[in-house]
Amino acid sequence: MASPPHQIRRRKIIDDEDRGEVRQRTVAEMGEFAVIDRATRGRVQTADSILGPGDDAAVVAAPDGRVVVTTDMLVQGRHFRLDWSSPVDIGRKAIAQNGADIAAMGARCTGFLVALGCPADTSLSVTDGVTEGLWREATRAGAGIVGGDLVQSDSLVISITALGDLGGRSPILRSGAKPGNVVAVAGRLGWSAGGLAVLLAGSAHHRSLVEFHRAPQPDYLQGISAAVNGATSLTDVSDGLIADLGHIAQASSVAIDLHSESIRLDEEIVDAAHDLGSSALDWALNGGEDHSFVGTFAADASLPDGWIRIGWVREGAGVTVDGRKFSGGNGWSSFST
Amino acid sequence: MASPPHQIRRRKIIDDEDRGEVRQRTVAEMGEFAVIDRATRGRVQTADSILGPGDDAAVVAAPDGRVVVTTDMLVQGRHFRLDWSSPVDIGRKAIAQNGADIAAMGARCTGFLVALGCPADTSLSVTDGVTEGLWREATRAGAGIVGGDLVQSDSLVISITALGDLGGRSPILRSGAKPGNVVAVAGRLGWSAGGLAVLLAGSAHHRSLVEFHRAPQPDYLQGISAAVNGATSLTDVSDGLIADLGHIAQASSVAIDLHSESIRLDEEIVDAAHDLGSSALDWALNGGEDHSFVGTFAADASLPDGWIRIGWVREGAGVTVDGRKFSGGNGWSSFST
Repeated sequence: MASPPHQIRRRKIIDDEDRGEVRQRTVAEMGEFAVIDRATRGRVQTADSILGPGDDAAVVAAPDGRVVVTTDMLVQGRHFRLDWSSPVDIGRKAIAQNGADIAAMGARCTGFLVALGCPADTSLSVTDGVTEGLWREATRAGAGIVGGDLVQSDSLVISITALGDLGGRSPILRSGAKPGNVVAVAGRLGWSAGGLAVLLAGSAHHRSLVEFHRAPQPDYLQGISAAVNGATSLTDVSDGLIADLGHIAQASSVAIDLHSESIRLDEEIVDAAHDLGSSALDWALNGGEDHSFVGTFAADASLPDGWIRIGWVREGAGVTVDGRKFSGGNGWSSFST
Repeated sequence: MASPPHQIRRRKIIDDEDRGEVRQRTVAEMGEFAVIDRATRGRVQTADSILGPGDDAAVVAAPDGRVVVTTDMLVQGRHFRLDWSSPVDIGRKAIAQNGADIAAMGARCTGFLVALGCPADTSLSVTDGVTEGLWREATRAGAGIVGGDLVQSDSLVISITALGDLGGRSPILRSGAKPGNVVAVAGRLGWSAGGLAVLLAGSAHHRSLVEFHRAPQPDYLQGISAAVNGATSLTDVSDGLIADLGHIAQASSVAIDLHSESIRLDEEIVDAAHDLGSSALDWALNGGEDHSFVGTFAADASLPDGWIRIGWVREGAGVTVDGRKFSGGNGWSSFST
């Protein structure tokens, strides 16, 4: 017996969804609540999420009795480009740069919130992709997305809030560096700047750098490792190594001198810099958005695994390389062109 | 003896600042860090702010061992207009709608974070005004602004995160309403919708409604009062009374019936509705953004001061007024026009 027409139609809609054709629809066609439902349904929260999305606010565990919290906004055309990065990459990067800030306090990520603004004609494939990237990187950071907001805006805007727990430790501030401390770094340097240079040059090579630029992969646990191992100051490399160490130098009222020979220049960035006529050392020292970690430790401290000594803290002010001011870019600034 | 030229120049700059002429400059002219400094310098944090702005993240007290957290994004032209609201009002409203969400969980506000996107040519008078409004309302809510971000965007975008503490109480969810409960409200209804209608009509009258629309004044403590007095469900009126009670009805799997005669229609909205040929009851039932509080209580509970009974919870589904579906608007939706 033939199915009645409404059953056929129902099956047709399900088939379309299965083929992903629903993702061709726009946010306005689906409506705010349906898009939020797609972003949250079936996602697995962590034990820190006491109350997830759906009420006036979320409730997140703060076993330490203090909560570490930071927020960053990413704007289309300014912090990402949809022709350079996939929606998944954009979501991942948004979480990574906020999660790295939590780790840079020596804390463990416990939850993320996402406020997303997008035009009404944004394809569901974009919001689905961003959502997938947000969840993928949040999971890497060990936390869930516990809440958010979805609004209409002229271009894509993503504002992330990250929460973290100190586990009874003191937060590691930028202001704790002392003369005589060693400066050490954990993670890649210059990869994001290299990837950006490859994209700007329109080169089809050096894809590992491009991938890293699109979605850096902070090793969040290095922040806790540094804290446990007595780091006296700590930050993540977001504006550029020299610029970020400049923040530490200023907050700590000290000078920092880096040894250029200690800065690990990976083969990938050396090759790309050679091809593009650029300087891998400049990328490593002035490139931002690597979201590696840099901090200071007592001279007699044993550095945690994965940390490499790259310089010393001195009396004075400012950051030098081999005793001299390093000429090159000056790191990232929000309102430069 | 005449001052050397550089002293004259220095004094000239200070005089300009004193006259407020510096506020004619743009965010790009001043630079990101100077604008952030203007937003934070001299501000007084509360005891909940363990570490304020200036490091990778802030640290906020969470004495309960849990933190309540919410985020909302406000977009120029969609959630506010610079020709209708002053920058101070915009800042106040942004904090109010997030602080009300914390209170609607039965929690006390402990801190706010602000991510602000603005065009490079934004006047400092705008960022200074928004900042002043943010701080003024945060202070009303009993908390400080502990961190933030400032980025370049095509239009003004403000994303707020609010944190709160439950003081050992359970969060009051939307899902706890039970048949037989009473429905009660604390605060004004229909004022924001009335103020918006006055603005849309271009009327120069009814300024108290316009002021309320520009900067609603939630009584944050009513959320805690409701929690302490045994509220079974709670939310704030952001989408409209019927729409927000619809969320409670759905989450609780109950029906809610309101008594129209119990809905207090203040003289201010009755007068304005009369002048504009509108319905004050429609504003009160379907207008959003009043950020008053509505919740449910056991039938034999004594309502806290300031709460008025407006209806009953029944078996069933949906929200009715005097037993019937109320015809009128359907509350606020982010992607409606």
